[in-house]
Amino acid sequence: MIYLDHASATPLDPGVQEEMQPYFIKVFGNPGSPHRLGLDAKNALDALRQSTASVLSCHPEEIIFTSGGTESINLAIQGIAHWFKRGHIITSSAEHEAVLETCRQLEREGFSVTYLEVDRYGMVSPLLFERAFRQDTILSSIIYANNEVGTINSIQELASIARHHNVLFHTDACQAGLLDLHTGRLGVDLLSLNGSKINGPKGVGLLYHRSDCPLQPLLFGGGQENGKRSGTENLPLIAGFVKALEVTQAEKEEEMQRLKKIQSTIISGILSRVPNCQLNGHPTQRLPSNVSISFRDIEAEQLIEELDKQGIYVAAGSACTSKSLEPSHVLKAMKVPLEYAQGTIRFSFGKTTSEEEIETLLRVMPPIIEVLRKNQIIISNHR
Amino acid sequence: MIYLDHASATPLDPGVQEEMQPYFIKVFGNPGSPHRLGLDAKNALDALRQSTASVLSCHPEEIIFTSGGTESINLAIQGIAHWFKRGHIITSSAEHEAVLETCRQLEREGFSVTYLEVDRYGMVSPLLFERAFRQDTILSSIIYANNEVGTINSIQELASIARHHNVLFHTDACQAGLLDLHTGRLGVDLLSLNGSKINGPKGVGLLYHRSDCPLQPLLFGGGQENGKRSGTENLPLIAGFVKALEVTQAEKEEEMQRLKKIQSTIISGILSRVPNCQLNGHPTQRLPSNVSISFRDIEAEQLIEELDKQGIYVAAGSACTSKSLEPSHVLKAMKVPLEYAQGTIRFSFGKTTSEEEIETLLRVMPPIIEVLRKNQIIISNHR
Repeated sequence: MIYLDHASATPLDPGVQEEMQPYFIKVFGNPGSPHRLGLDAKNALDALRQSTASVLSCHPEEIIFTSGGTESINLAIQGIAHWFKRGHIITSSAEHEAVLETCRQLEREGFSVTYLEVDRYGMVSPLLFERAFRQDTILSSIIYANNEVGTINSIQELASIARHHNVLFHTDACQAGLLDLHTGRLGVDLLSLNGSKINGPKGVGLLYHRSDCPLQPLLFGGGQENGKRSGTENLPLIAGFVKALEVTQAEKEEEMQRLKKIQSTIISGILSRVPNCQLNGHPTQRLPSNVSISFRDIEAEQLIEELDKQGIYVAAGSACTSKSLEPSHVLKAMKVPLEYAQGTIRFSFGKTTSEEEIETLLRVMPPIIEVLRKNQIIISNHR
Repeated sequence: MIYLDHASATPLDPGVQEEMQPYFIKVFGNPGSPHRLGLDAKNALDALRQSTASVLSCHPEEIIFTSGGTESINLAIQGIAHWFKRGHIITSSAEHEAVLETCRQLEREGFSVTYLEVDRYGMVSPLLFERAFRQDTILSSIIYANNEVGTINSIQELASIARHHNVLFHTDACQAGLLDLHTGRLGVDLLSLNGSKINGPKGVGLLYHRSDCPLQPLLFGGGQENGKRSGTENLPLIAGFVKALEVTQAEKEEEMQRLKKIQSTIISGILSRVPNCQLNGHPTQRLPSNVSISFRDIEAEQLIEELDKQGIYVAAGSACTSKSLEPSHVLKAMKVPLEYAQGTIRFSFGKTTSEEEIETLLRVMPPIIEVLRKNQIIISNHR
């Protein structure tokens, strides 16, 4: 098995799983309970929140643990919007569905939303961003690193523009586990992260929420997470998530170098062996773990199926939309021509990816593409 | 350690943990991914949904997996309310905070809410329920089994009254894992359940949502769970939760008998050995796993602390509010006199509780109470 779909799910790191273990059976108390077992859970939770705050360089009370990236993003965007009750939101047309669909819902509720165009690399222009602010703008939300094409936005610059306009700035950092997550340096007010993309567990994430920001909760109840997210705290998953975050951030320099090498092997290997294809996303400002390539006159689905038969697992566009036949909204936003867009494959790699796996990919894939293209021509002629 | 706080958290069943294991490292794919690993995850999820539907006697598409009881309840109540946009909601004054706080939020948004009084056992009267319906009532929500005092409401009767009025009926069944969960027989439109109270994992739950009910999602994004709850499906936790649900329901008759015996030992043991105390909740219509007793002239906190020193872990009121000094809203709703209410202890037991543990409790606790009461008198006299 050669797994090249790390952007949609990552295997749990064995060290992370070990970290979760004690909280399943031993320290299983409810952090809200008044006895020793509850207190042990509460102390563990406090320590985990403190560790997370160290990684993000913020205060522990600015961390809200959630059930994952989608909840964090919804909490940030709905939470700010519903607090203000009305107003204008700025985002981009190349965001994850969690941002886009939340914004569409807010439009149905009477908010107005600007979906900024992106350039051909999928990047948000600071100039266009600057021009989008209005008197009634309450929130801006731009993705840190694109989940489909890997392009990294200039979050620091965008956040400083938003601050200049006195408007809150949120970034979806769910794909940015390897990047700089120093909240002060980035200058963001809200930042969403999740566990499942960094070899941590699924079903857990966090929202960094600057302490002087308003926020209306999504979930009401027992008042956990400082009243901002009710529901019994999921200690095993939080422990795993925090461990994964610490490990990822501690090893990032080294891992980035390793992944960059793999990335450049894939890119040059494919571009040199397969005619009529193009790399999507920014040539330099991109995640080291992502290669998105559009093959002209190929249907991504067919290529995925053929690679699957060889035990090579890749995605078309993002996982969430990968079953849909129409080209992804991100490729559309980047104005990738249709004959390329429909043949787009995302290779995303990570901790468990080896150079050998990439060699196999580069050996196996080009002939498959050749055959698929030939069949395509035969079918066309036959018609 | 004698753990008598199963109503706030339960240890993970080792069999349940085993069930989760393969989904952490082997079948870790995103069910939305188009390759074999994604398909394996999707097939596993489909099978788990089918098993759950069998337990609840409903259609698989009527199951929405969530991050826990609080999310399920919020999704049910906010989801119906926001779909209708305005109207009146009926609930009781002895609900869990997740219901009460969600209703209070909806009041702030312009909905009107009736909080029905309960009788001295904490039970909702079908007659009062019947009288509460108005022309604009859109939803009713009554707890199945009370988390503090264990009283079981007549859900079947209440649901049929709601149906008679053409009003949707939701029940918070988070404490009702051992009770009848046949949705057709109960006649409910929505039912919330969670994993952490049935020796399953924390951070996972479900909302049963009858297929012809409306619902506005809380979380927007990739459109998972039939568009009703976006966010990557948390397969390991869902697998554990479903296993726990199946085991609990399969063993319920036997386990109920075992727990009833423990329950009657605790009740008769305490009432016969400790003067000036009373059992809270219904004498017969109650969870077999709960004993709530109010000790006059005792501060629950002090008693909890003394029992804690002996390695006996109990709660005061529900876990979520147990740190607060004022008597719980449930005891208030039941009109338990203050001098009793402030000395209320909840003993909740489960799968791992043995008769021997109860013997120890009954030996250790009465002298502690005697000492605490004596000290109380000395302090009072000194003042």
